[in-house]
Amino acid sequence: MDNFQFFSPTRFIFGKDTENQAGTLCKEFGASKVFIHFGGGSVVRSGLLDRVKKSLSEAELDFVQLGGVKPNPEDTLVYEGIKLCKQENIDFILAVGGGSVIDSAKAIGMGLCYDGDFWDFYSGAAVPEKTIPVATVLTISAAGSEGSESSVITKTDGMYKRGCSNDVIRPVFSILNPALTQTLPVYQTAAGAADIMAHIFERYFTNTKNVETTDRLCEGLLLSMLRELPKVLEDPDDYDARANIMWAGTVAHNNIIGVGRKQDWSSHDLEHELSALYGVTHGAGLAVVFPAWMKYTMNHDVMRFAQLAVRVFGCEMDFFHPERTARKGIARLEQFWRACGLPIRMEEIGGKKDDIPYLVGHLELNGGTLGSFVPIGEAEAAEIYGMMFEK
Amino acid sequence: MDNFQFFSPTRFIFGKDTENQAGTLCKEFGASKVFIHFGGGSVVRSGLLDRVKKSLSEAELDFVQLGGVKPNPEDTLVYEGIKLCKQENIDFILAVGGGSVIDSAKAIGMGLCYDGDFWDFYSGAAVPEKTIPVATVLTISAAGSEGSESSVITKTDGMYKRGCSNDVIRPVFSILNPALTQTLPVYQTAAGAADIMAHIFERYFTNTKNVETTDRLCEGLLLSMLRELPKVLEDPDDYDARANIMWAGTVAHNNIIGVGRKQDWSSHDLEHELSALYGVTHGAGLAVVFPAWMKYTMNHDVMRFAQLAVRVFGCEMDFFHPERTARKGIARLEQFWRACGLPIRMEEIGGKKDDIPYLVGHLELNGGTLGSFVPIGEAEAAEIYGMMFEK
Repeated sequence: MDNFQFFSPTRFIFGKDTENQAGTLCKEFGASKVFIHFGGGSVVRSGLLDRVKKSLSEAELDFVQLGGVKPNPEDTLVYEGIKLCKQENIDFILAVGGGSVIDSAKAIGMGLCYDGDFWDFYSGAAVPEKTIPVATVLTISAAGSEGSESSVITKTDGMYKRGCSNDVIRPVFSILNPALTQTLPVYQTAAGAADIMAHIFERYFTNTKNVETTDRLCEGLLLSMLRELPKVLEDPDDYDARANIMWAGTVAHNNIIGVGRKQDWSSHDLEHELSALYGVTHGAGLAVVFPAWMKYTMNHDVMRFAQLAVRVFGCEMDFFHPERTARKGIARLEQFWRACGLPIRMEEIGGKKDDIPYLVGHLELNGGTLGSFVPIGEAEAAEIYGMMFEK
Repeated sequence: MDNFQFFSPTRFIFGKDTENQAGTLCKEFGASKVFIHFGGGSVVRSGLLDRVKKSLSEAELDFVQLGGVKPNPEDTLVYEGIKLCKQENIDFILAVGGGSVIDSAKAIGMGLCYDGDFWDFYSGAAVPEKTIPVATVLTISAAGSEGSESSVITKTDGMYKRGCSNDVIRPVFSILNPALTQTLPVYQTAAGAADIMAHIFERYFTNTKNVETTDRLCEGLLLSMLRELPKVLEDPDDYDARANIMWAGTVAHNNIIGVGRKQDWSSHDLEHELSALYGVTHGAGLAVVFPAWMKYTMNHDVMRFAQLAVRVFGCEMDFFHPERTARKGIARLEQFWRACGLPIRMEEIGGKKDDIPYLVGHLELNGGTLGSFVPIGEAEAAEIYGMMFEK
């Protein structure tokens, strides 16, 4: 196991009606004027935004609001948010939404405490040292940003999608009410779940040896996802199943299950290009990327894939042909995602073989490679994209 | 799943040689004069105390020290620590040791910020609102106090053993170097592991329905313990196995795997009386208590026991007689602990049947019951103690 630091100071307030505590909590965390950040109309239509505002008013807190965050949140709205927050003397940010809204809020929070361009934190030109406190009211189980140290923003000038990771941007509190996810369309619920599973896979596939405790925690979360997601797809109002998925999504990405090992993350990079070119939802894109990536990298460590197949996907171990077990595990993952209504092949998201050079060309390789389990350069990426077309 | 709050702000610094960062970290967390708290001679003999002091000196921090914490830490040393810290204008406490040392340090930290008697926090007469920051350098994987919100102290006048639980007493940082546990005797290592497993069982046995995610996390940690502990007993210098156990011990008790459910904890109460009367190590006492408690409560929820047996102890499900599967799981737990050199029956720790009324009489029942999975009153406790003698 590798040396590591783990620091997750976010306070999680989990359960029914917890959004009504937003005002009290903001006040407890020192807010005097709150910037409410959100996305499209769903938080308005559902009445959530009004409930949050009512809670702030009851706590005698002033607030201003800025909506309009889109999936793959953009720098332009971040600049607008920073400007508005400065004008209004904001000292606290409350993100009401999913990963995109939270990531945008994190960028604004850092930007407010920095004289330069906030993009420096995403381009790698600077390291964030502080932020205006950011808190969240989560509306979809997926990105894990409610408890994570990361934020991903897209620079519209050139469409560069870049991430910033630093413990200072972990939210100070996150309100997690599983009932808020009950209005999500089935497809978005499934795509969110695939994103959660992908966060686990990115950590699971490692070259670090002897990481049994975190392996078992990863496997435990995956087993829970396999059992709880179908319940939600069958009955969208199954609060408990949504609660299990929501806590799994947070634990999957606050990194308690991923410490002490070298993680991979090349599949996320490969997926970003699919979202950019085809507009596919991030989690659905990951359901296309992972099976191909797994088939490509399987021979690098057949036994790790066999372990996943046996422990998570209930395959019987073929002791004399472990690669058969490994392949069966990948096949079961595909069957699971397909049964949940997710795409698992390029054709299903409008992908074309002719686009492969374009996809590869847009990867942020800089002459290097992606990932660490198996380093992925241009040739490897092209091959993996190609395998996403195979039946 | 029940509503919950989860807040674990401790920074964990995990890995080889991390104790040498003690000084830098204390300084980063605002220390100017540090109170080093420790137990017996082992941290002196091993050179750990000297390394920690050297690290503090290099960070130009003053310090004073107080050793002598014993297993089942006592109020008398807490009072001595509070007095010393006041005299010396201490603003930071560094516990170097295991759960007893950390619990004693937590009590001193609270006591320093309170005008009344620190025991008020343990008797329930007052709720702690703040503490001098407490940090830890952990030397045994067991109690989980390095990441927990709890502390247990014994009042020597009457030998009352009482706990205090509050998020304000979570350590600000904890240094976890698995190599520091390599000098522990095999028996202490196994007893510590039993304590870790017990912390998981206390959470696992619940009447709260639909808690699949935390069930799976509990099971994952147990599976890791079953695999890693025998490695350590075979080769005490197996760093990676000790590392897996150490992280499991922290995760098992910081409560991320126990949120959203009603927990039990009656076995801990039953064990405290064994430690008090027979002087048995807490973890070893738990290895005696749990099999009997499990046999007594099994029929309350046979399927939960069968789930444990199948998922953790590798038993085959007997679909027509699930109670057989449940019993087999308990038998395998006994076999495991026995193979690790732990006692699993009263006779092995010097227990006598005639002592049962005394043991029951000392339980803190106050006319009520212990636990929640199955409420345990006097008659039930007597029966469970009796079952600890059965072969």
